[in-house]
Amino acid sequence: MPAKPEQPLYNQALIVDLYELTMAAGYFENRYNPWSTFEIFVREMPPHRSYLVSAGLQQAVEYLLHLRFTPAEIDYLRGLPVFKHVSSEFFDFLGEFRFTGDVWAIPEGQIYFPGEPLLRVSSPIIQAQIVETFLLSTFNFQSMIATKASRVVYAAHSDGRERGVLEFGSRRAHGPEASLLAARASYIAGCMGTSNVLAGMKFGIPVYGTAAHSWTMAFPTEAEAFRAYHRVFPESTILLIDTYDVLEGARRATHLGPGIRGVRIDSGDLLRVSRQVRRILDDAGLHRAIIVASGDLNEYRIKELVDQGAPIDAFGVGTQMVTSEDAPSLGGIYKLVEQIIDGRVRYRAKFSLNKATYPGKKQVFRLVDQHQGFVKDVIGLEDDEIPEEHFTLLVPIIEKGKLIYPLPALEDIRSGFLENFARLDDRFKRFHEPETYPVRYSRKLQNLFNQLKAREVHHQ
Amino acid sequence: MPAKPEQPLYNQALIVDLYELTMAAGYFENRYNPWSTFEIFVREMPPHRSYLVSAGLQQAVEYLLHLRFTPAEIDYLRGLPVFKHVSSEFFDFLGEFRFTGDVWAIPEGQIYFPGEPLLRVSSPIIQAQIVETFLLSTFNFQSMIATKASRVVYAAHSDGRERGVLEFGSRRAHGPEASLLAARASYIAGCMGTSNVLAGMKFGIPVYGTAAHSWTMAFPTEAEAFRAYHRVFPESTILLIDTYDVLEGARRATHLGPGIRGVRIDSGDLLRVSRQVRRILDDAGLHRAIIVASGDLNEYRIKELVDQGAPIDAFGVGTQMVTSEDAPSLGGIYKLVEQIIDGRVRYRAKFSLNKATYPGKKQVFRLVDQHQGFVKDVIGLEDDEIPEEHFTLLVPIIEKGKLIYPLPALEDIRSGFLENFARLDDRFKRFHEPETYPVRYSRKLQNLFNQLKAREVHHQ
Repeated sequence: MPAKPEQPLYNQALIVDLYELTMAAGYFENRYNPWSTFEIFVREMPPHRSYLVSAGLQQAVEYLLHLRFTPAEIDYLRGLPVFKHVSSEFFDFLGEFRFTGDVWAIPEGQIYFPGEPLLRVSSPIIQAQIVETFLLSTFNFQSMIATKASRVVYAAHSDGRERGVLEFGSRRAHGPEASLLAARASYIAGCMGTSNVLAGMKFGIPVYGTAAHSWTMAFPTEAEAFRAYHRVFPESTILLIDTYDVLEGARRATHLGPGIRGVRIDSGDLLRVSRQVRRILDDAGLHRAIIVASGDLNEYRIKELVDQGAPIDAFGVGTQMVTSEDAPSLGGIYKLVEQIIDGRVRYRAKFSLNKATYPGKKQVFRLVDQHQGFVKDVIGLEDDEIPEEHFTLLVPIIEKGKLIYPLPALEDIRSGFLENFARLDDRFKRFHEPETYPVRYSRKLQNLFNQLKAREVHHQ
Repeated sequence: MPAKPEQPLYNQALIVDLYELTMAAGYFENRYNPWSTFEIFVREMPPHRSYLVSAGLQQAVEYLLHLRFTPAEIDYLRGLPVFKHVSSEFFDFLGEFRFTGDVWAIPEGQIYFPGEPLLRVSSPIIQAQIVETFLLSTFNFQSMIATKASRVVYAAHSDGRERGVLEFGSRRAHGPEASLLAARASYIAGCMGTSNVLAGMKFGIPVYGTAAHSWTMAFPTEAEAFRAYHRVFPESTILLIDTYDVLEGARRATHLGPGIRGVRIDSGDLLRVSRQVRRILDDAGLHRAIIVASGDLNEYRIKELVDQGAPIDAFGVGTQMVTSEDAPSLGGIYKLVEQIIDGRVRYRAKFSLNKATYPGKKQVFRLVDQHQGFVKDVIGLEDDEIPEEHFTLLVPIIEKGKLIYPLPALEDIRSGFLENFARLDDRFKRFHEPETYPVRYSRKLQNLFNQLKAREVHHQ
């Protein structure tokens, strides 16, 4: 069942860099508003990464469909000194503002690489300019988190056994809304759930939670704390056993009998402690009680625990996943690639060595082998012809301001991601020195770039 | 003029880890709801840091004053399998939920250190438990950003000259709301403004913006792009001059005459280029035109540019400031320190070596020298008596659910921070191997901790 685009949590029109609005006013006052195409792409792979995971499209669509400036917002803008010489008509225009352009994008849950357009906006330039900041902030964040979470989940499965990863990072995410969106992006990337209740309600993500050390500390003894919890949650009791002495805690947990679901360990040497705790549980006949581990985990620590055979059934991962601690920003940018001026296509490009922008509306052609495994990507022009077996990544999302793409349910985005991820060879997923996935420009696109560059040089 | 607590942007009640609600239900069902005190503090200084800047209190207050569960939220919670055995009365209780407790906190814009309680909540334990996640996410994020931004601003002033820092990071912040809150926290720490327009409207922060490379690329020539911009913004034109050739761009900028406000350089060797551009501007008589530099800046790069005498008048800082890139999480925690059980105070503490929690309601006593410079902090009990000259950091904010603290205007928080920061000696502000500011526990608090610990050992 496709998801319905929802009203955003709050009016997002002013989540915009001022310069988008000064440029919009500049275009408006210069009577310059040609149909223009911008593309979002990442120039460089963030450190330690070898692929990126697309996420954030649903929020981008909801923003574009609901983008309105309220009268109070317009009044605020009118009063800014920078707009002193801007005509009143511009603010009337903002009052009527609707996004009426076209959007193509790589659906959520796909693998993508630097240079590949994640999203393309075509509209009169004023519209396309105004939406830049919000789109970038949405894609940069969710894509960064989905990428990080995919690594954590991969580590948890690295011996082939299923082991759940729970997203527990709300208190360390970059503010309340970031905690909500991080839960969403992590779920797309294969986490089995989140502790964030709003993410559960809003996105249908399974929610998980046990108890904190304060629960145990609030009762006179650990045993009383455990019994009090079990009384209320007889079928889902996962006891946090390390408030005082973790092995003592494990023994006390077994006193509640086989009804407990499991225990959580949040500190110490997780390999050693999980083995000792497993033995205590098994000796008490609680073979089905699970062990959840948490505390400063990341993909490297999880892989090590899995490699060493730690008897851990699920990992609660917080801070390092929801902040993408080792690569806490993703540098997606938004570049003008084409305009229609006087009915003719004008390509736009930048030729600087490290900051080149390729011209034209692009498509990503993903070449596949006979088992549908990902072999190589070609970034070409929209109408490029690629002889090898492939599929294309960008699909039409919005046409003339109307949603024409059935937004997938989050469950389907997640299962789609897991399928896509399985089609990417493991050599691109290694945490240390992963191979670089081959991506090249099509001959047609490269020729166009070279022609424009030659003309540019000629002009100087 | 004090700021009024505003309605939050969206209903935040479910920005909560599920375990806060399972614990709340557990307490409710066990008829256990004693008056309890929790404190937020940071255990360890994040890497490269030597002090922290308090921020986030206003949003915390707005959350606490407006915390309500909507009927739809309660329905969602009732339907969660984990609550299967929880009585309907608990959900009725949530439907009536109001925060009626007491809050003390260190006001925004103060300097604080690990171990010091940033905020203290006293209320029936169910209330105090439910508010944990939101409070942590708010303080951890804003305090982290204010701390980072204070370093960036300090670097920009490191030769004693005033040089503005503009927060330009919205597109790389962790989602839209993070961009708004990062703008706020950076402003508290001394930035002169932000590009984020919602932060301008909502918080009254000065907004700044110039133009993007796309503006220049959208016109047939750079000269036309510059003229078109200047026509609309004759008094505030800051031209981005590095779309093609930066020196050529600087020369073209001078053709607009002395009316331009300045130029922005976003790439290249900022020291060399800023010197060349300054010469071009000066040769054209534009001595008052300013140079704004941007592009992957942080405190280290800015300090180097300032040390080397780069003729840069303002820095636009984005990604690295709004993500606190070198320390992208702050580990504030929320610990139970005291309860009233049967009319008697019960202290709560944890004694593990690296994760000790000191008991009781605390106060921070900041000792000052005769010039009011900060000398040393003593973390004591609320009613501790400290003979040396000092002031206390925590003040009462909310009493029985009512705001009793006049929330300062953001301008006053900012100027308060700048004053506080000036009272902290420069040796604590160095970027490389800063000195550790002296913080100790009062004798009374240490004695209480030792007594409780001895009793704990005795019990085992």
